[in-house]
Amino acid sequence: MDCALLEELQAVLPGRVSTSSSDLDRYSTDEGPVVSPASPEAVVRARSVADVQNLLRWATRHTVPVVSRGAGSGLSGGAHATPGSVILSLEDMNRIVAVNPDDETAVVEPGVINADLNQAVAEHGLMYAPDPASHRWSTIGGNVATNAGGLRCAKYGVTRDSVLALEVVLADGTLVSTGHAPFKGVAGYDLTSLMTGSEGTLGVIVGITVRLRYLPRSVHTLAAFFGDFPKAAAGVLAIGRARVQPAILELLDGRTLEALDRAHGSNLRRRGGSLLLTQTDGYGAATEAEMITAALTEAGAVVSEENSAEAEHLVELRRDSRGASAEDLYRVGEDVAVPKSQLVSYVTALGAMAEKHGVQLKVIAHAGDGNLHPTFWVERSQGDLGRSRLEEALDESVRSALELGGTITGEHGVGQHKRRWLAWEQSEEVLDLQSGIKRLFDPLGILNPGKAIC
Amino acid sequence: MDCALLEELQAVLPGRVSTSSSDLDRYSTDEGPVVSPASPEAVVRARSVADVQNLLRWATRHTVPVVSRGAGSGLSGGAHATPGSVILSLEDMNRIVAVNPDDETAVVEPGVINADLNQAVAEHGLMYAPDPASHRWSTIGGNVATNAGGLRCAKYGVTRDSVLALEVVLADGTLVSTGHAPFKGVAGYDLTSLMTGSEGTLGVIVGITVRLRYLPRSVHTLAAFFGDFPKAAAGVLAIGRARVQPAILELLDGRTLEALDRAHGSNLRRRGGSLLLTQTDGYGAATEAEMITAALTEAGAVVSEENSAEAEHLVELRRDSRGASAEDLYRVGEDVAVPKSQLVSYVTALGAMAEKHGVQLKVIAHAGDGNLHPTFWVERSQGDLGRSRLEEALDESVRSALELGGTITGEHGVGQHKRRWLAWEQSEEVLDLQSGIKRLFDPLGILNPGKAIC
Ligand SMILES: Cc1cc2nc3c(=O)[nH]c(=O)nc-3n(C[C@H](O)[C@H](O)[C@H](O)COP(=O)(O)OP(=O)(O)OC[C@H]3O[C@@H](n4cnc5c(N)ncnc54)[C@H](O)[C@@H]3O)c2cc1C
Ligand SMILES: Cc1cc2nc3c(=O)[nH]c(=O)nc-3n(C[C@H](O)[C@H](O)[C@H](O)COP(=O)(O)OP(=O)(O)OC[C@H]3O[C@@H](n4cnc5c(N)ncnc54)[C@H](O)[C@@H]3O)c2cc1C
Repeated sequence: MDCALLEELQAVLPGRVSTSSSDLDRYSTDEGPVVSPASPEAVVRARSVADVQNLLRWATRHTVPVVSRGAGSGLSGGAHATPGSVILSLEDMNRIVAVNPDDETAVVEPGVINADLNQAVAEHGLMYAPDPASHRWSTIGGNVATNAGGLRCAKYGVTRDSVLALEVVLADGTLVSTGHAPFKGVAGYDLTSLMTGSEGTLGVIVGITVRLRYLPRSVHTLAAFFGDFPKAAAGVLAIGRARVQPAILELLDGRTLEALDRAHGSNLRRRGGSLLLTQTDGYGAATEAEMITAALTEAGAVVSEENSAEAEHLVELRRDSRGASAEDLYRVGEDVAVPKSQLVSYVTALGAMAEKHGVQLKVIAHAGDGNLHPTFWVERSQGDLGRSRLEEALDESVRSALELGGTITGEHGVGQHKRRWLAWEQSEEVLDLQSGIKRLFDPLGILNPGKAIC
Repeated sequence: MDCALLEELQAVLPGRVSTSSSDLDRYSTDEGPVVSPASPEAVVRARSVADVQNLLRWATRHTVPVVSRGAGSGLSGGAHATPGSVILSLEDMNRIVAVNPDDETAVVEPGVINADLNQAVAEHGLMYAPDPASHRWSTIGGNVATNAGGLRCAKYGVTRDSVLALEVVLADGTLVSTGHAPFKGVAGYDLTSLMTGSEGTLGVIVGITVRLRYLPRSVHTLAAFFGDFPKAAAGVLAIGRARVQPAILELLDGRTLEALDRAHGSNLRRRGGSLLLTQTDGYGAATEAEMITAALTEAGAVVSEENSAEAEHLVELRRDSRGASAEDLYRVGEDVAVPKSQLVSYVTALGAMAEKHGVQLKVIAHAGDGNLHPTFWVERSQGDLGRSRLEEALDESVRSALELGGTITGEHGVGQHKRRWLAWEQSEEVLDLQSGIKRLFDPLGILNPGKAIC
């Protein structure tokens, strides 16, 4: 980037701009696979709405791409730098502006960490329900921009279901408000939902009004071990057929249990070939746990009701089950979703695919929503050939989910990584409508170009 | 309309077009106030997606406005005819295409009646949760196009929260699919939510995939009578503070109780000055009912647990509480929503407004969502003067809701009737974005012009 441009940026946003190589490096990627590596030209850490507006006015004047970023925990490369871009970090805008116990809402800046909001509202008997496994470090702004799911979404819905209103800075620096403070409102088009999940391509989210839910007083956690993974997937359907709604319904395959045992010294794999972890909550939690136990026992599981320490530990293990990245592996995690009735066939097909392409596989799933995270990997020593086998397995896993009526991404977003599959799911007409919306909101195409849509 | 045009329409859609004056009359308005009376040129009753596509191709060729219509139960004039328009009735497209018990979804044509869907899925232990009081005659297509609320929405959310995927015919006759069959999906922008609540201005909804919920096995209904209306509104907050989530939480003022008593021979008004009707459901329903009873008794209510016949009767009375239209009255129902903490001040202010403007008032509210339906009326014999006092009361009731952080419409939509208030709620920039979206989807402006946005 031209020096004069950078100097102007520094003058517009004194003290907020960094071009140190450590910052450029640190902010160049999120946790997703890197499709085309790029380094940003600068990093801006905004502290106010005015900062964001000033940045975007500058970016509009000079047609500079701006990549918004929360905690950078995204798994699709949505926050990866693109050539010539400035990274706009919202992490310093982390004030909880208001908690309204009688309204059962809160107003937050985008950089507030998900878990921090939950901690702040707990004293009022409230919770912010959407809890991605990354809840201890991902931001509400990032959660909204990806429409994040999470563990409790089986019962409480995804991020969109908890977002009432947004403050958004548009590409030209204009600040707009969307949505409504009451729980319900239908004036005009639903721009709040349009922004939710738009991955920084339509505007920068600078304020969020969320609906809170009641913190359940009673919680029952069950660990159901099955002989193998398809049987555990069938267990998900058995719970559904009992018409009992768990708050959490997570499915872990044998390889995941092995990895957890290795990392944490647990002995999960010895207890079974697959684990279905369920949590019921609320005033009916005990009865619901009994009904689930009956349904899963009938389906062949060994079910134990965990005491609260063990249960919390298991749920925490699940949250950490993505595992640390390993230098010696090419590894890519997927995020497909299928209709629930297809879970058993899909997990069976996944095993066959891994074998066919000679790649390794482990799977975890937000099974209550039909949302699966298969992770495929090969040893780096297998080189390009291994890598291309991995890509073939990925392609097939995505195509197969689509054939079963599913989607390429249940919760992580398209980002950069999944654009190659988007046209497999969406028709040309839908892609065109999306591009039209993008042009309407961002005529110069400066907001996170090359992400989310195609 | 030019005869040749009509003949072409009849040739394109043989047997589907009516121009009989009784049909033109019957289809000229919905249940909303009429702002500018108009008669349609023709009524088309589509029986297939192809019919809808053929109509829209014809309409695009000749730039003829098309007003989509379900049951015509709308309360904002969204389905009113506009000058030169053709009414597109979807009521004959009323097949339940699929019920998928394991997926917990159903696929329906737009003309399916809400209650019919519920009846069809009940045998599978499932329900379609959003239940507008008009559920026995309004259509799922109309419910989606208005993002209808209802009684159970306090717990289960509004229509949007139950819509997974849509089939939509665009203005030029193109058929597109939006959304995803699994519960979760974040590929591309959320066009499904954009269509939901767009009141026929962005496309014609011809297919809907809905998420179903578990039919609760246990239901407890409580009738809590309070001395006056503000005290009952305070009861809503008391339940919230107990952090118990009822499925239904409906508030009726004394005038509404009187009207119900007159219409049905009940004796509700003698039991108190205001009724708060609550229903809990699910495995915790009994405990929840106890907690609500305690909270409301503490708040000054006389609470009775109704047996199931009485309870169902009370809920049915509530559903019918809009009352029949009366020839000798000018009457307009409103649909504002306010944050829950503002309920008491708002209902108090409403009473004062009615008095100040010399108009009559009764109020019902989906109180769990802060959504109120005040109805104002004057005798027709009071002529223009009475009418203008009525309009002043309406304006003040809307402005006051906005001042308390509310919205002009919680669930009925803007339609034709509420456009005069839209700019009170939304900024010029937001109105511009909405117009831009409208132009993108409907460049000729033929889809329900003069509705929903401005
Ligand atoms: C261990 C682990 C577990 C995870 N578990 C889950 C899970 O259970 N469910 C789930 O859904 N995801 C999960 N994720 C993915 C990730 O945490 C989520 O996508 C999260 O919502 C991203 O939040 P973030 O603050 O890190 O956003 P980032 O990664 O910084 O950004 C994500 C996207 O949002 C955009 N963005 C960020 N902030 C804004 C803003 N204020 N305005 C506009 N655009 C913005 C970015 O441009 C990017 O496109 C997990 C990730 C990890 C590493
Ligand atoms: C007694 C009574 C009680 C009511 N209670 C409630 C309530 O509790 N909650 C609530 O939200 N509403 C309520 N309503 C209002 C009304 O029933 C709802 O708005 C309902 O969703 C309208 O459905 P409909 O099939 O009658 O649609 P219509 O009235 O025919 O149309 C409504 C709007 O949707 C558009 N539309 C209809 N079908 C389609 C389609 N297939 N594609 C595109 N656009 C379409 C129309 O153009 C119009 O703008 C009530 C109405 C009455 C008369």
